[in-house]
Amino acid sequence: MPNLKDLVNGILSGNFTALSKGITLCESKKLEDRKFANELVKACLPHSGNSIRIGITGVPGVGKSTFIETFGMYLIEQQKRKVAVLAVDPSSQRSKGSILGDKTRMNNLSVHPDAFIRPSPSSGSLGGVTHHSRESIILCEAAGFNTIIVETVGVGQSEIEVKEMTDFFLLLMLAGAGDELQGIKRGIMEMADGMLINKADGENLTAAKLAKREYQNALHLFPAAESGSTPKVEICSALNAFNLEKAWNMIDDFIQLTTDNNYFEAQRKSQLNAWFKKSIQERLNLALFGNKRINNFINNLETQVIQKQVSPTEAANLVYEEFKKSLL
Amino acid sequence: MPNLKDLVNGILSGNFTALSKGITLCESKKLEDRKFANELVKACLPHSGNSIRIGITGVPGVGKSTFIETFGMYLIEQQKRKVAVLAVDPSSQRSKGSILGDKTRMNNLSVHPDAFIRPSPSSGSLGGVTHHSRESIILCEAAGFNTIIVETVGVGQSEIEVKEMTDFFLLLMLAGAGDELQGIKRGIMEMADGMLINKADGENLTAAKLAKREYQNALHLFPAAESGSTPKVEICSALNAFNLEKAWNMIDDFIQLTTDNNYFEAQRKSQLNAWFKKSIQERLNLALFGNKRINNFINNLETQVIQKQVSPTEAANLVYEEFKKSLL
Repeated sequence: MPNLKDLVNGILSGNFTALSKGITLCESKKLEDRKFANELVKACLPHSGNSIRIGITGVPGVGKSTFIETFGMYLIEQQKRKVAVLAVDPSSQRSKGSILGDKTRMNNLSVHPDAFIRPSPSSGSLGGVTHHSRESIILCEAAGFNTIIVETVGVGQSEIEVKEMTDFFLLLMLAGAGDELQGIKRGIMEMADGMLINKADGENLTAAKLAKREYQNALHLFPAAESGSTPKVEICSALNAFNLEKAWNMIDDFIQLTTDNNYFEAQRKSQLNAWFKKSIQERLNLALFGNKRINNFINNLETQVIQKQVSPTEAANLVYEEFKKSLL
Repeated sequence: MPNLKDLVNGILSGNFTALSKGITLCESKKLEDRKFANELVKACLPHSGNSIRIGITGVPGVGKSTFIETFGMYLIEQQKRKVAVLAVDPSSQRSKGSILGDKTRMNNLSVHPDAFIRPSPSSGSLGGVTHHSRESIILCEAAGFNTIIVETVGVGQSEIEVKEMTDFFLLLMLAGAGDELQGIKRGIMEMADGMLINKADGENLTAAKLAKREYQNALHLFPAAESGSTPKVEICSALNAFNLEKAWNMIDDFIQLTTDNNYFEAQRKSQLNAWFKKSIQERLNLALFGNKRINNFINNLETQVIQKQVSPTEAANLVYEEFKKSLL
């Protein structure tokens, strides 16, 4: 185990190796690593927060990697920002696969000294799928990154998780509202703080412009967002680096507005609190579902519940009694 | 305490007094009542399920009570159905108030022998705000009601709760997408299986027709629903009993379609399972937050978390240790 003070100092001085090491510890399933990670996060917390956190989602094929590569380079070169890219991918728990593993698709960004790209972990972390992502954000901010991009592949609950850890939630879309859209889950459109219609290039440009107008009309009918900002729709082409400034302005305007109306700070605080509450649930779930005997007990009851042999309420009481017994 | 067998038989024979008594026991906070209610629900479970469960939401002023009165009477008289009306109102936990307390607004329905109206309970129930609503549905079905209408006032989490306990989620709206809409929360539109634009009467009729077209266009852009059904938009006037047949057809078509594609049954099973899992969480939460000392402990930590003095993960571990101690 590294020396805590050294690692903290390394991260605070922006050392990439220290940052990577720190994130690895946050992602670890080992109990002693987790204890160390807790200390690390605690030490970095006071140095965190000074950033814009951008969540990005969209169906496979929408061009997320290319967009992050091009947009990230734009942010660094034109806006003089420091960009960290993280990924939330609950599916990697099962598949042991990894998104963003292909830094090769981010050729320029991955080697730039003002960018840090962290592939998603190759297996599930202790106590919840996105736990470590929130901690990684803290560490990246402590290391001086003032723009955090959190990518999600849109599997399971991941969008909601990413929405709950970012300031601005961006939905990448394609023109041609037909088949491509089927992959987007219901509820995501209303979660978005802004939409970008990507691949607005070549023959697609006209369709993209049309789609922009259609979505703008549709969004107009949506209930007002709590942020006080009406979601915008823009077109862009990650391939041609077209309209990246409009994309950035969309985000920047949102941050300005929500800073002025105090929504930004209020959301950050409520996200911290929600993280705490979620962590309590995850800790309890770990105790329940991480215990093989109780897990089997729950699975058996599940069958009985679905067959209406026992009421869900009664079954829950039985689980609780079993849980208490396991602690004694 | 009544005799269990007598009460079950009373409910199964459709006796209103027995049904009311049963629901009161489900809503009770007393532990012995809850134990009795568990037995009651267990006995009714095998007789439940043979119904259409309709969730209805909409901002105050949209005319929910009038709609339920008129629509309920239509269902009874024209469709020969038996209608039970329940309410989910988490806000009553705080205000000790009650929605649907005013049966006076449902003059005809409230006295009809084929209708049963249950006002929301006047205070929070043990173990979760909507616990008892799910149990009440079971009891109403066992009593022979084949149409369950669950109304929500749209406060807090209530729409999601109602969506999770019904087969068809209906959003009541008003024409004039401006101010009136502000009360609808984001995410609700994408949750709806269908929309009804109410108050399509007099001068409002033209605006309602226009709104119908606009929403239909907007819904067309939405991702496909898991049910396999595209949400429809209709206009109606609860005041003039106008277009109630179209409203019913919208629901009936959905039930037919989802019965044929097996979504109906699959959703019912997954809702039962979700209720079980939710009950486990609620049982644990009750043990945590129902314990005054632990509750204070959590509140103190919350302040420290928001002030970044302790990380959420670490704080959650501390809560868990405190919880374990309390059980010993």
